[in-house]
Amino acid sequence: MRETYHKALGSISEALVEMANLVGSAMGRATGALLDADVQLADSVISTGDRAAEMQRDLEERAVALLARQQPVATDLRMVVTSLRMSADLERCGVLAQHVATVARRRFPDHAVPQDLRRTILEMGQLAQRLMAQAAEVVITNDVDAALQLEQDDDRMDELHRAIFQHLMDDQWHHGVETAVDVTLVGRYYERFADHAVSVARRVVYLVTGEHADDFRAEPTTPR
Amino acid sequence: MRETYHKALGSISEALVEMANLVGSAMGRATGALLDADVQLADSVISTGDRAAEMQRDLEERAVALLARQQPVATDLRMVVTSLRMSADLERCGVLAQHVATVARRRFPDHAVPQDLRRTILEMGQLAQRLMAQAAEVVITNDVDAALQLEQDDDRMDELHRAIFQHLMDDQWHHGVETAVDVTLVGRYYERFADHAVSVARRVVYLVTGEHADDFRAEPTTPR
Repeated sequence: MRETYHKALGSISEALVEMANLVGSAMGRATGALLDADVQLADSVISTGDRAAEMQRDLEERAVALLARQQPVATDLRMVVTSLRMSADLERCGVLAQHVATVARRRFPDHAVPQDLRRTILEMGQLAQRLMAQAAEVVITNDVDAALQLEQDDDRMDELHRAIFQHLMDDQWHHGVETAVDVTLVGRYYERFADHAVSVARRVVYLVTGEHADDFRAEPTTPR
Repeated sequence: MRETYHKALGSISEALVEMANLVGSAMGRATGALLDADVQLADSVISTGDRAAEMQRDLEERAVALLARQQPVATDLRMVVTSLRMSADLERCGVLAQHVATVARRRFPDHAVPQDLRRTILEMGQLAQRLMAQAAEVVITNDVDAALQLEQDDDRMDELHRAIFQHLMDDQWHHGVETAVDVTLVGRYYERFADHAVSVARRVVYLVTGEHADDFRAEPTTPR
């Protein structure tokens, strides 16, 4: 009985890590689709997002079954409840990767991202994927320092996001409104993806220390 | 003991309704702040969002305590787990209202919304508030038909969102890139707010019928 119980708890963590890997890769591919105007890559991202949604539902079912049958208390209970929130974060990341891919798809055969923002978007995409890999690691290791580090690394995402807006507001912007709209949305999708990765790590901090590291990544109220 | 238990379950529902009322009003005021370029109103919205985050945390604590002490099963267990997800939806709505208010604040004393989009934004704001009021009612009544109706009413939000993008892509657009960026973001905030209201209602459907009405409002993968 005990063994089944610990197995069930462990399998929830494993499912979270698997989801994190899935959506991290999806965002990497979505960035590729965006920068290369690659429709096939975009389509593969769109199906991955649906897979993340399935996994989320499956994880929720397992968590509810575990609560009903094993009635965990204390840390174990908190772990199960927290995993529900984490899986919601990760599912959302799958949707955000789909959104990035959809922007690429819509502008095909054109490129949605103008040359002068390519490097910034590439860095955002890579950072998003790296933050998600760090979040997965934190779920495995329960390493509080690594979780707090992740949050610092996310500051770079905010810088990049601001850089995009500065570029958009620049009088030199000559790519038209449609591109401005696409870039605005894409910037927001990356930023939200990173916020969810930070949120996953912060929940681990709370699990381990019992303290909310500030808040659950209160998203800054000045989104720009 | 039984009485305390049912009281605790009931108080979680009440807290959800209170949160829904809070964030619904916040979005109403955020729309006012946006259309009237009213900084004081904007500031009041920003503090409301923080209140929603506090309520969310409080509700989560109570849910965990209830799971630990009362170990509910079957429908009651599912209700507690679902309430955690709903409260996350509602907390997010508080943040989205803050974002709308922040756009108003940033452009003060100018108006962020040009005259030719005023009516569309007003309708989006009113619809968002109405959808949230409907969601609150569904939480109280567990009325599946009302929940499904809410989803149909949300189609209007998608129409309005599309109308904004059509207007932005119009060759006649002469409000510049900064306004295009603001309008793009604001449109997205309203749409996400409505999605969360729909999501709350859909979770009620699942609680009552045991069936996922399609999916949890799988957000369309073509955000425009």
